[in-house]
Amino acid sequence: MTKPYELSCPVARALEVVGDRWTLLIVRELMLGRTRYKDIVGALPGIPPNLLSDRLRSLENEQMVSRLAPRGYELTPKGKDLAPILGGLAIWGLQHYGEAPSARAIHGDCGGTVHIGCTCNSCGTDVDPAGLNLIEARESGVTA
Amino acid sequence: MTKPYELSCPVARALEVVGDRWTLLIVRELMLGRTRYKDIVGALPGIPPNLLSDRLRSLENEQMVSRLAPRGYELTPKGKDLAPILGGLAIWGLQHYGEAPSARAIHGDCGGTVHIGCTCNSCGTDVDPAGLNLIEARESGVTA
Repeated sequence: MTKPYELSCPVARALEVVGDRWTLLIVRELMLGRTRYKDIVGALPGIPPNLLSDRLRSLENEQMVSRLAPRGYELTPKGKDLAPILGGLAIWGLQHYGEAPSARAIHGDCGGTVHIGCTCNSCGTDVDPAGLNLIEARESGVTA
Repeated sequence: MTKPYELSCPVARALEVVGDRWTLLIVRELMLGRTRYKDIVGALPGIPPNLLSDRLRSLENEQMVSRLAPRGYELTPKGKDLAPILGGLAIWGLQHYGEAPSARAIHGDCGGTVHIGCTCNSCGTDVDPAGLNLIEARESGVTA
């Protein structure tokens, strides 16, 4: 979608697909259940309509969005996989640019602060997400 | 840094600060310990040098980066708070665009697959990150 970075890093590859202006905000609206073109335009008043059409077409080409009906869209599982990234951006934005100095993401059920992090599915350990070199080193080596 | 979206959403605010082309990749290099200007240029061969200088200055203005020495930089705690977002982008990029079909993020200690998600600090529950409206609704309402 955007100009390639020509790097082997998976962060760069991800940003080539979702890093264009407005793209993640469109994904966010779809994630919140706004599936009709006009509802997305309504939620993102600053977006030029032809740019929204272009972005939706690109997301469809990347199989992140599927067409529901004329002018209707929904996220595929690949698109929904962006949920924690959007959650992380919301938490970071809230923490550092929230209107209230104490603004933070709250767990509705118990009132605790929510954090975002990497967890191992097998042993349940919190993994330091700064260890990205570990992730990259495995990129082409994992076979099972 | 980028043109404002004119939205109250914390995701939009975050993207105004880190959504410009190259910005998150520069943060990633700093997170991997590349603190010198020339090391960052070396790791990101496609970046125009004056654009790197501009981005570093913007990150400094946003208090995400502090200057170490002439031509040296390090992330502040606010910059380091982006680690899970970079981790999430790496995991997503690896899962959907990795060279091996089975490419995924691996926990070095036990070999399990790593996932990224939202967890409540108080009760330890996994919170659905798609529930961003919850986060936003609290943006200006949290006082304690």
